[in-house]
Amino acid sequence: MVVGDFAHEKDILVIGGGPGGYHAAIRAAQLGKEVALIERKRIGGTCLNESCIPSKLFANAGATLQSAHKFETFGITGSSSLSLDLSKLQHQKSELIHALTQGVEALLKKHKIERVQGSASFISDSEIGVEEQERFEKYKFEKAIIATGAVYQPDTNLPSGEARVLTGADPYELEELPEHLVLYGSDYITLEIAASFSKFGTKVTLILDEEKESFPFDQTLNRELMRLLKKQQINVYKKTKLLHALPKDDMVEISLVSPKGETTLEASHFYAMAQPQPNTKSLRLEAASIETTSAGFIPITTTTQTNNPRIYAVGDVTASGGLAVEAIKQGKVAGEHAAGENSEWDPDICPVIAHTVKPLASVGLTEEEALHEGYEVSTNQFPLASNGYAGITADKDGMVKVISEKETDVLLGYHAIGTGSVELISTAIQALEMGGRIEDMIYPYYPHPSINEAWLEATEGLLGKAVHGM
Amino acid sequence: MVVGDFAHEKDILVIGGGPGGYHAAIRAAQLGKEVALIERKRIGGTCLNESCIPSKLFANAGATLQSAHKFETFGITGSSSLSLDLSKLQHQKSELIHALTQGVEALLKKHKIERVQGSASFISDSEIGVEEQERFEKYKFEKAIIATGAVYQPDTNLPSGEARVLTGADPYELEELPEHLVLYGSDYITLEIAASFSKFGTKVTLILDEEKESFPFDQTLNRELMRLLKKQQINVYKKTKLLHALPKDDMVEISLVSPKGETTLEASHFYAMAQPQPNTKSLRLEAASIETTSAGFIPITTTTQTNNPRIYAVGDVTASGGLAVEAIKQGKVAGEHAAGENSEWDPDICPVIAHTVKPLASVGLTEEEALHEGYEVSTNQFPLASNGYAGITADKDGMVKVISEKETDVLLGYHAIGTGSVELISTAIQALEMGGRIEDMIYPYYPHPSINEAWLEATEGLLGKAVHGM
Repeated sequence: MVVGDFAHEKDILVIGGGPGGYHAAIRAAQLGKEVALIERKRIGGTCLNESCIPSKLFANAGATLQSAHKFETFGITGSSSLSLDLSKLQHQKSELIHALTQGVEALLKKHKIERVQGSASFISDSEIGVEEQERFEKYKFEKAIIATGAVYQPDTNLPSGEARVLTGADPYELEELPEHLVLYGSDYITLEIAASFSKFGTKVTLILDEEKESFPFDQTLNRELMRLLKKQQINVYKKTKLLHALPKDDMVEISLVSPKGETTLEASHFYAMAQPQPNTKSLRLEAASIETTSAGFIPITTTTQTNNPRIYAVGDVTASGGLAVEAIKQGKVAGEHAAGENSEWDPDICPVIAHTVKPLASVGLTEEEALHEGYEVSTNQFPLASNGYAGITADKDGMVKVISEKETDVLLGYHAIGTGSVELISTAIQALEMGGRIEDMIYPYYPHPSINEAWLEATEGLLGKAVHGM
Repeated sequence: MVVGDFAHEKDILVIGGGPGGYHAAIRAAQLGKEVALIERKRIGGTCLNESCIPSKLFANAGATLQSAHKFETFGITGSSSLSLDLSKLQHQKSELIHALTQGVEALLKKHKIERVQGSASFISDSEIGVEEQERFEKYKFEKAIIATGAVYQPDTNLPSGEARVLTGADPYELEELPEHLVLYGSDYITLEIAASFSKFGTKVTLILDEEKESFPFDQTLNRELMRLLKKQQINVYKKTKLLHALPKDDMVEISLVSPKGETTLEASHFYAMAQPQPNTKSLRLEAASIETTSAGFIPITTTTQTNNPRIYAVGDVTASGGLAVEAIKQGKVAGEHAAGENSEWDPDICPVIAHTVKPLASVGLTEEEALHEGYEVSTNQFPLASNGYAGITADKDGMVKVISEKETDVLLGYHAIGTGSVELISTAIQALEMGGRIEDMIYPYYPHPSINEAWLEATEGLLGKAVHGM
């Protein structure tokens, strides 16, 4: 091994080039700091290479294919000849990821951030070593930002090395469409996989574990999602214990106990939900006296600092949620704070979206959370079936639910499923951020006809004023 | 003619069942008033029966057909066999309009609003007569709301009664696809017709009149729209005088003078932009001493009252703009004010949308307006080509432009074109309504990956902080 004599010096070192890391690096560089970014694999992290981006591409392909069912409604003929070629979608996935990683590399270059390829480990709380093949280089830093993410592993005991037994991002690597995919899980990732493959034409079965009657959203949203899964002909087993998933010949035998008794399913493929395991092992955190939880996650403050205030951590490695949106926000905060700005993140208003049978979006308190926190609430839900624009696009499944505090009329939460729910969440985010009252939401004009009117009428309904609600 | 002896008595009479009228009626009924709604034709008005709804259905059919070009990108094969059957789309239009009008009728019934079929005219400022075939009934009222709308007529001299010479909503009545459609106009209605038929496969030419170099939006938005029209292969003649449009055999000969000289075009169909002419003639407004402008429009206050405070007017008949969104807002205000509430409308923050080559949305001040009003402004535009989600959906044309006041960082305007621009306008509407500062927009989290991030990065860019802007 060749050890570089000269220790490179940087204001800020960022370890990890996922969304948390590259946002941290660019924001710090925008604020005038000398920054280097160390990544051992490809820039973009799990999100860009394996998770968010592939999943949304698959969801979009699924939604597009499924929308063909209503082409006749718009006078468009010939849709029966449409079909999916999964290998072509895989090709597009590779192209897209390549383009996006190249885009991030270009952004790093534009902001004069040094790109270092290799594996980082702390030497002290002001030095990091980077190993790449035969070389080992030392970097001195003023501040460091850890953004090494996590690997996703199932918490179920599964036979490993089996092509028909999937977890994490495996489904997005398939070259052929599964005939019957059985999924064990209830998180948004599992829901997205279930919906995409169902739309492609795969038979899909979803198993919720013994603890779970439903999904982790507002109860009204859960009910509508359950209805749409049924409509999509996805069979859902609730409160079910997985006994085993055994590959046999050309299939997987899945044995389970539901409240209705013991059952065995035969599937072409089986998927188990994965949990994040922090990438902290090779970092030698002890050399910089950085504390971790027993599971290896790094606790952080609202300024994203670790117990060592010169060292920050952001994203999946911090166990603060596992959403790219959080990694991005924390990355910006870390970049700003490390560059000397006052900057904090607020874990309370974090949007959650999922591209299920229909897109789903949720921000603020659920009705149950609001009641649990002692609020007296008003709630209202507005069905997309009553929205004119949803009628025009023949996309009437779903609803918008809003929750406000009864006494003050201040908005507390937004939970929607259906066309436009993801785009409209920003309206709720803006209102929540500014402490908006219902009056602030219903006073302005909203375009007509538009899906935006579903938001307007949902909020009007809190005051008994929705015109189109039946 | 049979004259009813008994004068019916109502708290509030609404004349006209378009969006302005039915919103006024329902809102007043929600507030406990006895309401009757008089309509001489079909409920829903111009918007539902002829304009907004058909145009958005056609735009959606066009967008769907055009999206087929990128199906291969998602691995979906067989899209080359897709084509439009205009007569089937016409059938769907009729079904949709029928369903929506039935929906409004049901809402009126639910709110116990008496539906009166016939032509209304004032007898005094407390009585209206309604004529329907052989019957004439008298209605006494406390308050009346005029929502009779307008008819749309071209301000160009055109040969009338010619099937190939179109105006107003005529294009949405065509049963066969025009081969070459030449449009004379620059408003959002003309732009929507141009885009829809171009996507259906019609050759489209657009003529802007002598005064017009471009469109009535923010200049940056105009430039991007002009680029997209070119990309869509819609030929645009700017600053052009129409000499004549003469039907000849199976075509229309259109003669014009552009800055490049005199030209003659041959088209299968010609369309001329229409202007609203208020439906006030048969109302006998003088019997209630209601003043009109010389063109017949009814001036109103911010409470939607006419010069006679017991009588309100809303929508196209008031000449306040000609957008359904305004009619709806004014209708609600009229219903509330007539029912005794304090209610006003603010003409300043009115959103404008149009489903052109890509959807387009605009609210607040344009850059030119802001400068004209004496603001020192910051502006930023974020191209969708730099948004990851736009890459995923292969829908990268367009941009989001935001304008803020330099000194205060208060948002002044939002002008966007491209996928999601209509849905995201509500975020800007909410921020404008609450006097949001840029900090209020960039502090929260936005879902990743999503088109919503284009709004975030556009606003971050105002402070030089957009991560993905190149």
